[in-house]
Amino acid sequence: MGIVVQKFGGTSVGSVERIRKVADTVTRTADQGHQVVVVVSAMGKSTDELVDLAFQISERPAPREMDMLLTTGEQVTIALLTMALQERGYKARSMTGWQAGIQTDPVHGKALVKKVDTKPITESLERGEIVVVAGFQGISADGQITTLGRGGSDTTAVTLAAALHADYCEIYTDVTGVYTADPRVVPLARKIDEISYEEMLELAHLGAGVLHPRSVEGALLHQVHLVVRSSFVDEPGTWVKEADMMETELNVRGIAHDLKVARIKVLGLPNRENTLTRLFACLADAHINVDMIVQSEHDHEHIDVAFSVDEGEGEEARQVLQAAKENLGFAKILSESGLAKVSAVGVGMMTRPGVAAKMFATLSEAGIRIKMVSTSEIKISCVVEREDALEAVQRLHHAFGLDAKELAEVAQ
Amino acid sequence: MGIVVQKFGGTSVGSVERIRKVADTVTRTADQGHQVVVVVSAMGKSTDELVDLAFQISERPAPREMDMLLTTGEQVTIALLTMALQERGYKARSMTGWQAGIQTDPVHGKALVKKVDTKPITESLERGEIVVVAGFQGISADGQITTLGRGGSDTTAVTLAAALHADYCEIYTDVTGVYTADPRVVPLARKIDEISYEEMLELAHLGAGVLHPRSVEGALLHQVHLVVRSSFVDEPGTWVKEADMMETELNVRGIAHDLKVARIKVLGLPNRENTLTRLFACLADAHINVDMIVQSEHDHEHIDVAFSVDEGEGEEARQVLQAAKENLGFAKILSESGLAKVSAVGVGMMTRPGVAAKMFATLSEAGIRIKMVSTSEIKISCVVEREDALEAVQRLHHAFGLDAKELAEVAQ
Repeated sequence: MGIVVQKFGGTSVGSVERIRKVADTVTRTADQGHQVVVVVSAMGKSTDELVDLAFQISERPAPREMDMLLTTGEQVTIALLTMALQERGYKARSMTGWQAGIQTDPVHGKALVKKVDTKPITESLERGEIVVVAGFQGISADGQITTLGRGGSDTTAVTLAAALHADYCEIYTDVTGVYTADPRVVPLARKIDEISYEEMLELAHLGAGVLHPRSVEGALLHQVHLVVRSSFVDEPGTWVKEADMMETELNVRGIAHDLKVARIKVLGLPNRENTLTRLFACLADAHINVDMIVQSEHDHEHIDVAFSVDEGEGEEARQVLQAAKENLGFAKILSESGLAKVSAVGVGMMTRPGVAAKMFATLSEAGIRIKMVSTSEIKISCVVEREDALEAVQRLHHAFGLDAKELAEVAQ
Repeated sequence: MGIVVQKFGGTSVGSVERIRKVADTVTRTADQGHQVVVVVSAMGKSTDELVDLAFQISERPAPREMDMLLTTGEQVTIALLTMALQERGYKARSMTGWQAGIQTDPVHGKALVKKVDTKPITESLERGEIVVVAGFQGISADGQITTLGRGGSDTTAVTLAAALHADYCEIYTDVTGVYTADPRVVPLARKIDEISYEEMLELAHLGAGVLHPRSVEGALLHQVHLVVRSSFVDEPGTWVKEADMMETELNVRGIAHDLKVARIKVLGLPNRENTLTRLFACLADAHINVDMIVQSEHDHEHIDVAFSVDEGEGEEARQVLQAAKENLGFAKILSESGLAKVSAVGVGMMTRPGVAAKMFATLSEAGIRIKMVSTSEIKISCVVEREDALEAVQRLHHAFGLDAKELAEVAQ
């Protein structure tokens, strides 16, 4: 048997008691004959506490010093979990990011992994040790401690699984897997047994929140088999893998939603080749992420453009464009918040006739107005009023035949 | 002007407020034109909290993992202090032990510094940065994180001062300097302006507690000028330097005491060449530190040996020897706890007649019985009943002319 990478997030290692439970899970895997590499986050809220300390001292702490500060959180966890494993009679060794050979670019706070020197880990595994690696962190070429940004422990796990050619990578979390919709919204949501990388990526981007998009991208790129499962309940989770390895009788894999959406409409832009480029360059320069974009003709010489952004960035987007009004040459800007996005996701969905039609019909029958539409190979997203969003999710879940026969039991 | 090393202990960096005060002290020194290297400990009780966590998980946590765990404490402080310095507009850079080039042997929990690669620090200083180094930690030749053991931050400071050829090394603490006796015991104790390394070493060993003996040894070896001063009150502290650079009109520099002493008497040992060797090898094998040793003849064929140990190790010492009774061939073992040691320390003291006589006379006049005596070039120590110890210190302080004219103001 080969290498298994297991990742445990902050809640899973939130107390001494939970660290002991994690040690039980890890040793069970080792007992099955696997070589185990464990990636852990900081305990519970400890990262938030460190952030608090920093902001008591400085309103704008330097990113290098934030990395120096925050990486201590995972270092505490690796030491404690390794002690717990040793206490059970297993050989184990903790490694910080730099000790585990995780080399990144020098961008503090959101570094990208450039290379993994697998020697320290493989040598440790060959000595029969369980290796416990601090997630979220690495080292730059000039010896600085870096962090991979939020969601970084998932990225560490997937990156190590790829570099070590692991059999699979288990992401332990506080839910039992990926669901056809948020079980808090749709009581009949079902756990998905298998999902493709592309579908998972759409669901991750669309707010399912179980896996960070960056880690799914990494898994897709290196074809790492991912399993999302619960660290509290011992049951099979959701496998994320290549679409061609899966049964695909289903049109729609799941319904996702995002409750914090704002829409900006820019009316009467000059109808020229570079208009869109200039408009979105403006927003990119201000580090505003644009999601859906819809363009329509206003008259022969003018176009209208509408786009959606995260609600927190709506007002800034409006101000940035307002300031560039003369330069961009538009007539008017309208912004609207209090919106939501509802998406149906599934590989091959768009090649089947009627999926989009069914989605629009379902919403229309419920009297829910669609304010924007965007489609890709594997998803259809609609922007609706936020007050309609949860009903939309429930109706779509039912309409696409995703409802379970019984209520889901969601472990917390 | 050259390099100044400043060390701040756990109490001095125990809160965000205190870290800001430390930043004020550091920037004042930088404003005077010095290049400043700061060495800090973990905040307040944070090391104790980490130790607690470890012992909740394991009764005997592996030293390697303890080092992994505990070194996070200083790493938090260096990041926060560096932020505070940057907040004041100064260029500053934090460094962990391994980043600062502090190379140690591989003995986890009590590593010895083998070498300092000064390049990272000197390059940083040359860029005009204040360098903030995590005390108490280093890296072994095979890349493991090590700690220097208790008192290790002082050792880091002195080691860096020596390696960087610093002008001097300031040890900031919660007292205003080294005193002629513990001011809590002797209200008329005076702050000592200058003291020799050797005297400080005796005082450190004898329980004065201000400086760790290992750091004084390091300072003596590399002739680093040390200053012990308060991080709360801005006044000159105590300089520790070469004896020949000091005025030496005083016989006795200070009176130290240690309230936790046990005495073991081993009676009727065979009078052979290797008897003492075998007796103390027994204790050394059990890692028991023996302090004073007195040997006397029992009869022509037998000797008696008495020695003092830290009270916490008294019972273990007795058991170790009892178990080796047949092997060592003694007749009887007696142990006594509840004792204390009182010492007069001063360079050149023993070459002046009458110092020992005055000590014995002073104690005898007060009706204090001396149970053991030990002397060196620069000290005389007497073991007495613990209940007599504080009176002994007060009387000796007065008898040797150390009393101040006014009550000492001891900043806490």
